[in-house]
Amino acid sequence: MKKSLKELAKLIKGEVEEKDGDIEITGVAKVEDAKEGEITFAVSDKFLNKARESHASAVIVPLRIKEFPKATIRVENPRLALAQILRVFYPQERNSSGIHPSVILGKGIKVGKRVSIGPYTVIGERVEIGEDVCISAGVYLGDGVKIGRKSLLYPGVIILNNTLIGERVIIHAGTVIGADGFGFAKKKDGSYYKIPQVGRVVIGDDVEIGANVTIDRATMGETRIGRGCKIDNLVHIAHNVTIGENVAIVALVGISGSSVIGNGVILAGQSGVTDHVNIGDNVFVAAKSGVTKDISPNTFVSGFPARSHIQQKRIKAIIHRLPELLKRIQRLEKKYQEINNGISENY
Amino acid sequence: MKKSLKELAKLIKGEVEEKDGDIEITGVAKVEDAKEGEITFAVSDKFLNKARESHASAVIVPLRIKEFPKATIRVENPRLALAQILRVFYPQERNSSGIHPSVILGKGIKVGKRVSIGPYTVIGERVEIGEDVCISAGVYLGDGVKIGRKSLLYPGVIILNNTLIGERVIIHAGTVIGADGFGFAKKKDGSYYKIPQVGRVVIGDDVEIGANVTIDRATMGETRIGRGCKIDNLVHIAHNVTIGENVAIVALVGISGSSVIGNGVILAGQSGVTDHVNIGDNVFVAAKSGVTKDISPNTFVSGFPARSHIQQKRIKAIIHRLPELLKRIQRLEKKYQEINNGISENY
Amino acid sequence: MKKSLKELAKLIKGEVEEKDGDIEITGVAKVEDAKEGEITFAVSDKFLNKARESHASAVIVPLRIKEFPKATIRVENPRLALAQILRVFYPQERNSSGIHPSVILGKGIKVGKRVSIGPYTVIGERVEIGEDVCISAGVYLGDGVKIGRKSLLYPGVIILNNTLIGERVIIHAGTVIGADGFGFAKKKDGSYYKIPQVGRVVIGDDVEIGANVTIDRATMGETRIGRGCKIDNLVHIAHNVTIGENVAIVALVGISGSSVIGNGVILAGQSGVTDHVNIGDNVFVAAKSGVTKDISPNTFVSGFPARSHIQQKRIKAIIHRLPELLKRIQRLEKKYQEINNGISENY
Repeated sequence: MKKSLKELAKLIKGEVEEKDGDIEITGVAKVEDAKEGEITFAVSDKFLNKARESHASAVIVPLRIKEFPKATIRVENPRLALAQILRVFYPQERNSSGIHPSVILGKGIKVGKRVSIGPYTVIGERVEIGEDVCISAGVYLGDGVKIGRKSLLYPGVIILNNTLIGERVIIHAGTVIGADGFGFAKKKDGSYYKIPQVGRVVIGDDVEIGANVTIDRATMGETRIGRGCKIDNLVHIAHNVTIGENVAIVALVGISGSSVIGNGVILAGQSGVTDHVNIGDNVFVAAKSGVTKDISPNTFVSGFPARSHIQQKRIKAIIHRLPELLKRIQRLEKKYQEINNGISENY
Repeated sequence: MKKSLKELAKLIKGEVEEKDGDIEITGVAKVEDAKEGEITFAVSDKFLNKARESHASAVIVPLRIKEFPKATIRVENPRLALAQILRVFYPQERNSSGIHPSVILGKGIKVGKRVSIGPYTVIGERVEIGEDVCISAGVYLGDGVKIGRKSLLYPGVIILNNTLIGERVIIHAGTVIGADGFGFAKKKDGSYYKIPQVGRVVIGDDVEIGANVTIDRATMGETRIGRGCKIDNLVHIAHNVTIGENVAIVALVGISGSSVIGNGVILAGQSGVTDHVNIGDNVFVAAKSGVTKDISPNTFVSGFPARSHIQQKRIKAIIHRLPELLKRIQRLEKKYQEINNGISENY
Repeated sequence: MKKSLKELAKLIKGEVEEKDGDIEITGVAKVEDAKEGEITFAVSDKFLNKARESHASAVIVPLRIKEFPKATIRVENPRLALAQILRVFYPQERNSSGIHPSVILGKGIKVGKRVSIGPYTVIGERVEIGEDVCISAGVYLGDGVKIGRKSLLYPGVIILNNTLIGERVIIHAGTVIGADGFGFAKKKDGSYYKIPQVGRVVIGDDVEIGANVTIDRATMGETRIGRGCKIDNLVHIAHNVTIGENVAIVALVGISGSSVIGNGVILAGQSGVTDHVNIGDNVFVAAKSGVTKDISPNTFVSGFPARSHIQQKRIKAIIHRLPELLKRIQRLEKKYQEINNGISENY
């Protein structure tokens, strides 16, 4: 495939100098790998420097970069531009391959047009699959599951009974949605009695869920993942959790039962949220933090228990001065002793 | 389904006022969702308040609640009562559907009565499956595996060679039991030499294991999970670990090789246990803690390395006063300086 | 199977006393379980004491142990010796069982000699499988995947398009290699726009990967796992990460995008690495640590953010003395007050 820089600039709503408009671009690559004829992208100074020295024929740069030794397309959001250009050079091909003859279909299922279902997939009763849905091999859909149109399920995905999946949802391999919540009543003898988990999971439109994730069904009611959420690999979301829209959850995060996460929240890697807490809109939870109580909207929290990140940083800074502080206390004690002796002698 | 409050009270060994005994209950719901005709439950004050304002026709409450504006069933353990009532309204239906014709059965296997095995399940040689066992689709059972009666394996569960599973065990989707332990000998050149993992995993009766969990086989001997343990999603249990009875392990916990966990222990979410340590009976390990040495029975530990939670809390409280303490040290230093100058002037 | 102690000693390049050379060994067991006729091993004093009291007929011990009440084989590296002896008593049997008739084979695939492929495995187009490869049941190999000779894939492993796997690689059950990286561009309205993930994963020779692990494909270019790496269960490795040779990664570790891990590094359990950092050769990252910036080679780091472990230990020690330090500050304040009063009175 070949595209002129002018064509690409138009596509990503970027600015290109007229003299560069006819440069032909044959591909896109990381700055370290880019060869002649390819376009690359650079956001930070570090990558701008690398781009300068690369063999790339053109570079997508932020608007603020006015001068550059190579042809550029200047854009407001280079990451977005990269995504758009990658789509040009790597168009998503989703030709429907139909339903493989080995697929097991339960009673009363409804399947839309142009649906693909891969080999050895097992589909329960009363399942509804929207048009243009692509289901890979070895997938399991329990009774009463609904999958919205244009959704994509990778191999080995397991969706248990009555789960509702929105449109254009992507679920990566090995993920389990709708397993029982972790709910037990402790008996006097110390043993646990299972609380039946009779709720379901509801996933909004445009959600993407990574590999080997687990999202549990509600005890009663619904576990809800809002529209546009992006969930990384190996994340655990417990029963009755409610997650707003456009929430990003990085790998190995755990969210305990019945917690409520606002819109636009970011939970960084290996962070955790205890049960029954509310996290306000647009909160940023730093990596490895543990949220143990409600968090106000638009705050940046870190640590365990999670608190204001600014406060935590101040405290961390002092913690790293503790050996020095200990010495200062010792010095004061010694000096007091001297003063005391001095005063005593004085009398 | 309809049940009178009297009938339900009898079932859960609860107290109901005579005037309320004939109220008809048609379902059970969370306090937020409960409609007329439904029963809900409330433990804490927060939920008691919500229950007051709900549309529920009756509420399961703790014994201590003597007055309430709605019909109640008073019980010692409302969670247990909820579990029992959910079983009434959502009876477990496990009709044997038999063995699907696509199931692959190894040589010398023994299968009990009323066993169900779902499509595309693969079963190795000399496997024994007890009566009333229900195995879903796409499950793998390696050679020599034994599954006790009434156990339930969800889709995609993988049980490797020689694993023994007790009775009434529930294993959720995507879980892997009996993979090789992580054992290597380091050679002089820095490379690792695999230590063959020739032991097995033994799971006791009434254990429930979440989704995408991993429990490794022993290097030699057994990795053991005691009767009644409840394990949440994405938990890792390493080779040769021994876990007592009625232990609860929350999501994303990791337990390293050869550690021993006593009866009744609770490991909260994202906590970890290093190798070769002993955790005594009824220990509570707080979320995100890391146990690095033996823990005495009946203690509550937190932090990393995990120590007495009371001690940790006291320390955490001081840590959050560090900016203030720093100022107090500075003030003392200044004052000492003044005194010193004063004394000097005095001379 | 029977082996004389002499034969075993020769095999593991160990020293045995001549009088013990003809002792017949019929098996190998942990020190707690060893019976007459069996050999066990002991490294630390704790296990040496246990070995003394065991029923084992012989013990593999470190070279430094000159006197022992049982027959011994003295070796430089007892763990390595154990691994070698386990291989004798538990030889790896990998008889090729051929390709099961239910396996689905894509167009243009190449399969080497003596390959086994288990039931219900699905293999895409243009896949190349080297000789002596053993693929278990329910595995998925996407288009363009290559698997080097003698590699072993356990049940339910999912390898997505264009992944390259080296020789003698072992991948445990449920692991997903080549899922999309977690890459999105944030738009002005707060929603995320997917960055197509068009790179691949390349796994070196002699790598072992645990169960339910996730290794994401690169956005562009490659995610690389170097020769000889050993990865435990439930580990997450993000897009474009580069891992050197002989790196050991313990369970529940997460490595974020584009980070570079040197040769011989050890990442202990539940540790994490942020994106775009470099960890030098032979670094040891303690359990639960979080690496947030570049780490020099040959260092031992811990904590979050990860720093020199010696420094962290010193700080931790002071942290645990904080209640005492607080008292010392209070005492100084009180004494200052007394002095101040004293001086005032003095005037």
